[in-house]
Parts: sequence; C-alpha cells; structure tokens
Amino acid sequence: MEAGRTRDTASLIALDWGTSSLRGFLMDGGGRVLDQRANAHGIQNLPQPGIPGFEQAFAELCGGWLAAHPGLPVVAGGMVGSAQGWAEAPYVPCPADTGTLASRAIAVDSASGVRILIAPGVTYDPPDSPPDILRGEEIQIAGVLADRPDWARDACMVLPGTHSKWVRIADGRMTRFATYMTGEVFAVLTRHSILGRLMPEAAEAGDDARDGAFAEGVRAAQASGPGDLTHQIFAARTLGITRRMAPELLKDYLSGLLIGHELVSGLAHGEIDPDAGRTDGCPLLLIGDGALCRRYVQGLGLLGVEPTARLENTAPRGLFQFAIAAGLIAPAGKDPHV
Amino acid sequence: MEAGRTRDTASLIALDWGTSSLRGFLMDGGGRVLDQRANAHGIQNLPQPGIPGFEQAFAELCGGWLAAHPGLPVVAGGMVGSAQGWAEAPYVPCPADTGTLASRAIAVDSASGVRILIAPGVTYDPPDSPPDILRGEEIQIAGVLADRPDWARDACMVLPGTHSKWVRIADGRMTRFATYMTGEVFAVLTRHSILGRLMPEAAEAGDDARDGAFAEGVRAAQASGPGDLTHQIFAARTLGITRRMAPELLKDYLSGLLIGHELVSGLAHGEIDPDAGRTDGCPLLLIGDGALCRRYVQGLGLLGVEPTARLENTAPRGLFQFAIAAGLIAPAGKDPHV
Repeated sequence: MEAGRTRDTASLIALDWGTSSLRGFLMDGGGRVLDQRANAHGIQNLPQPGIPGFEQAFAELCGGWLAAHPGLPVVAGGMVGSAQGWAEAPYVPCPADTGTLASRAIAVDSASGVRILIAPGVTYDPPDSPPDILRGEEIQIAGVLADRPDWARDACMVLPGTHSKWVRIADGRMTRFATYMTGEVFAVLTRHSILGRLMPEAAEAGDDARDGAFAEGVRAAQASGPGDLTHQIFAARTLGITRRMAPELLKDYLSGLLIGHELVSGLAHGEIDPDAGRTDGCPLLLIGDGALCRRYVQGLGLLGVEPTARLENTAPRGLFQFAIAAGLIAPAGKDPHV
Repeated sequence: MEAGRTRDTASLIALDWGTSSLRGFLMDGGGRVLDQRANAHGIQNLPQPGIPGFEQAFAELCGGWLAAHPGLPVVAGGMVGSAQGWAEAPYVPCPADTGTLASRAIAVDSASGVRILIAPGVTYDPPDSPPDILRGEEIQIAGVLADRPDWARDACMVLPGTHSKWVRIADGRMTRFATYMTGEVFAVLTRHSILGRLMPEAAEAGDDARDGAFAEGVRAAQASGPGDLTHQIFAARTLGITRRMAPELLKDYLSGLLIGHELVSGLAHGEIDPDAGRTDGCPLLLIGDGALCRRYVQGLGLLGVEPTARLENTAPRGLFQFAIAAGLIAPAGKDPHV
C-alpha cells in the first residue's frame, strides 16, 4: 500500500472503483502506469458510511499522489457512479462510444477541492425484451477500442465474472449487450442451496479430473433445450448421491453447466456460429481474470470456438482513454508534460 | 396437537415424514383418515440428534394412537428413508409401481417395540444423461394410481415444489421422471443474490398486478432459447432499476420466469405438445399445494395447455396403498376389522 516512486511526468490519477475494491493508477501522458495502489474500500465496504466514506477512501489511496503532484486530473469508473456510489452518473444508452461516456460523465468535488470525473454506465434497451445494464465494463472496453481499430470495427467482447457481459462492438461503439448472472448463480447455489452440501470446502482433485468434470457440464449444456437448466443442475446432487462423480468434482461440473449455458446462449445471440468453428469473421475477445478466462477458453473450445484473444485488466487503459475523451489530458503526441 | 377422537376401526398409522415436517394419519381399513396430527419434527428439525430424535418425534406424534390401538401397523414415506433418515431405504429403479415400493421397503423397530415400514425412493437412470432421484413423491403418486386406472395407464404427473418433479406414468408404473430445482432456485435468488435487494419483504401489490408480472415472466421463458435463463433473470434487477416494474412485482416476475422455464422444458421432455393446446391424449395432472399449483395452472394456460386435474395431498391415500401392497392391511372388502 506504499505510494512507491512516481515520476514528474505524472498526468492522471485513474480510479477503478467497484463494489468490493478500489484500485488507483498514477499514469503519465502516454497512458503508462507509473504507480498503482489498491485497497478493499469498494462502495460496499467503505471505511465509514456515505459521502465521508468515499472522501476518506479516496484520500487514503490518492493523498500521497496528490501531495506530490498537485492539480492532477482524476477520473473514475465503476460502481462509484451508481445510485449507491459517490455521485450517480446515469446510464447512457447504446450505441455508445468512449466519447459518449465522456460527454455524459458526472463531476464530483471532494472536500479537499479535487474534482473527480465519474464515467456513466451503459444501458441496452431492445424493443422486445427487458433492458440490460452494465457499469465498469464500458471502461475496460474503452481500453480495447482505442488500441485496436480492427476490433473496434466489429467484435464480440466477453467479460466473464459475477455478472458476465457479452458486448457487441460495431464501428467503435457498443451496440448491444447481454448480462449473464453466471458467477453469482454459481456462488448462491454452492453456498446456499442443497447442491453445496455434497461439495467439500477444499477441492483436492487434480487439474485433469477437474477439467474433465467441467467439460462434462459444458457438454450437458450443449445438449440442452430451452428451460433445461434448473433440471440439469440437480445432477450436481444426483451424481454425488449415486457416487458417479467424486464429491470434490461436483463444483467443477456445476461450473461447466452454468458457464456452458452462458456460452451456448451468448454464442447464439452474438450470431457467432459454433458449427463453423470460428466467429464468422467477428473476433471474439475474452477480457478478464486469467483463471476464470481459462475456463471460458476451455468451454468455448468444447463448443468448437477459439477466441481471438484473451486480454487482462484493460481498465487503466480505458480510464486513460476516457480522460482523453473528456479533454482532461492531451492525446498522445500532444502531452504538454512531454 | 391433540389426538382427538379415534374409532375402533383404526387399521393403520401412516407417516408422511419429510425434511421440515412430520404428518401422521390414523386410518381405517377403507383408507379413510380418522384422525391426523402434525409437528415440525422433519428429519432436519428433530427434537434431539440422531436415532433418539426419530424415536422421540415418533412417540410424541403417535404415542396416543398406539396406546389406544396397540399393535396397529405403521408405514412411513419421505426423507425418513433417506441416508439422513431413521433407516435408509435405498432408491429403486424405474420402472416402479406401488408393489415395487412395498417389496423394497425397509423395516425399523422402534425402542417401544413398534415396527415401522419405510418406503424407498425411486431413481431414473437414462443412458444418455445423469441419474435423477425422488423420495416422497412416489407415495403421492401411489395414491393416484390405485384410484384412477385411466391415469395409471398413461399420464404425466407434475408435483410442483422446492424440487418439482415431472413423472411419466405408463401401465401403472413410474417409467421416467425429471427434477426441476425451481422452488429452491427461486428461494436462493430472492434471499441471497443481488436480485433480492430490490424486492420488498412484504408484497403490497394486488392479485391482478401480480398475475400480470408472473405472466410476463412466463412469456419471456416461452420466448427463450437454450442457455438463456441466467441472462433472463437479470431482468428482475434491470426492470426494477429502470422503474419499468414496481419493486413489489419483481418476485412474481422472477417466479414466472423460473416456473415458465420449468414448464417449457417439462412439456418438451414429457412429449406434451403445447401447440396442440392439449396433452396429446396424455392426461397432465398437477399434485400439490393449492397456491403453488394455481401458479402452474396459470403458467400452463399461457403456454396453451390445460391440466386435466389438480389434486391436493394424495400422500395419505398413497401410504394406505403402500400398506396394502406390503400386506400390512387387507385390500378393501377384506378388512378383518369390518
């Protein structure tokens, strides 16, 4: 948690402020991360309730940087802009690009006089089904859009997680997306349903066996018809009770089922043809944590799809692009500090 | 909890002993319920742990009946026969009829010298998918099979609940079935997931509005493709956040989604054609609690299917048939007490 060294080219403080953690990045005018810090003060775990909690968490994380570099612009994305955040930055509708995010950002002035520009979330409101929302992922996506014009033209970006997002990109904009509660459903089923009772706390199975159980779940999902999920998950109990599967593998099987269902649906709605063994010209990008993304790669492979690329934490890059779009720092080559 | 009046024709004590409750029926030789009692001593809520807990719960419920009618046979069905029950009555495979249940029952002798005959559960083990299990429902089904030879020949029986069961009947036997964790998934999502946060504890909406929200969920399920469920349930959040649906209706919407998915899948696998507006000659029977069954009737109606009948608690009748099949009492007309 030490501030570490900073350089005199520091141009931006960027905050990735989510539900359970706060991550800060000190960046130079080219978007390079000079220093980073993190603490557990996500918006549901502030050091004190309400606005003073946001103020304190911000001061604790960024006070050193601001003392060393007075007047640095500060941007933030994630749940800090939700109705439960520091200030609400209402959702902007699809289609939306990084410029849209900047033009609809909300500024909040901290007690110390520092202004923080907070990115809005995005909503997708199709005519024939309920609206969908995301917040935080738009920043990760902005980090990809700026650096890869080819993917910005046409891509499907998958961000696995508690609430996985499948986002379709066209002409540099998010045009539509769908949320899958895969991670959260897995968590509540293993922790709070009867399925968790047969699952040992610590898994002792080898990687190959776990991959095998996961694959079995994915294949069951692949063979499923509409509405089958709440039936299929019961197998995570019956396979244990009938001793067809070792207890330490039941979690992986359930994970395969749930991720498999997400992949089957996401690929279908993304108009990505698994039978073609490719994404039909549309690059499929996985963005997120390595271990979870590995599972998605395995699952996609079982469905005959190879993702075009796997990208880890693109949030710092996205916050940097958001700051450029908001006019807080100059684009590359025009940085007044260089 | 008083024993109430009993007649000298008492011929059987029948216990429906589940996870959360214990229900007892004093019956005459024709299967009529002379008296009934219940307490909360389901197998996960015994007055003390282990066998002494079963002994005590049994003595508290049936002691008065046994004192008044020494030597009465006692039968039991439900989770009391599970691995966590008083004595394990292992699952019997499909196809299974009431005679199968009787021939594979397990006897346990109580400390007071009373013998209790416990019915086994049933397993269905298809070649191409994981095994399924039920325990307790086989008794409810036995109650229908004996009285309705027409339904015993060919029917689909749906038993809504925490773990809903869809059971296909042919030639007097359970031939195959599927479990849907609909009720439990609804419970864990509303209690433990982010979806519950927007749902007020006490619903204040009118019945029409609640039926409307439920119907909207069923229609979304009807329009769904494979794997869509974990996406669709997120609407129980977004519809609230975007104020498209009143908070007090979100639970009904989620219920409609989950029950709708079960109905879509159950009808498809039961080979019951919703487009035909009928069950294709195969009677569709709903067995269970009135309020929940009402929702299933509403959901089926939206899918163009009208159930043939709704039956409430058929467990006493089934336990009586189980006792006959086990030779503990004589069939109707041959009762030695009459």
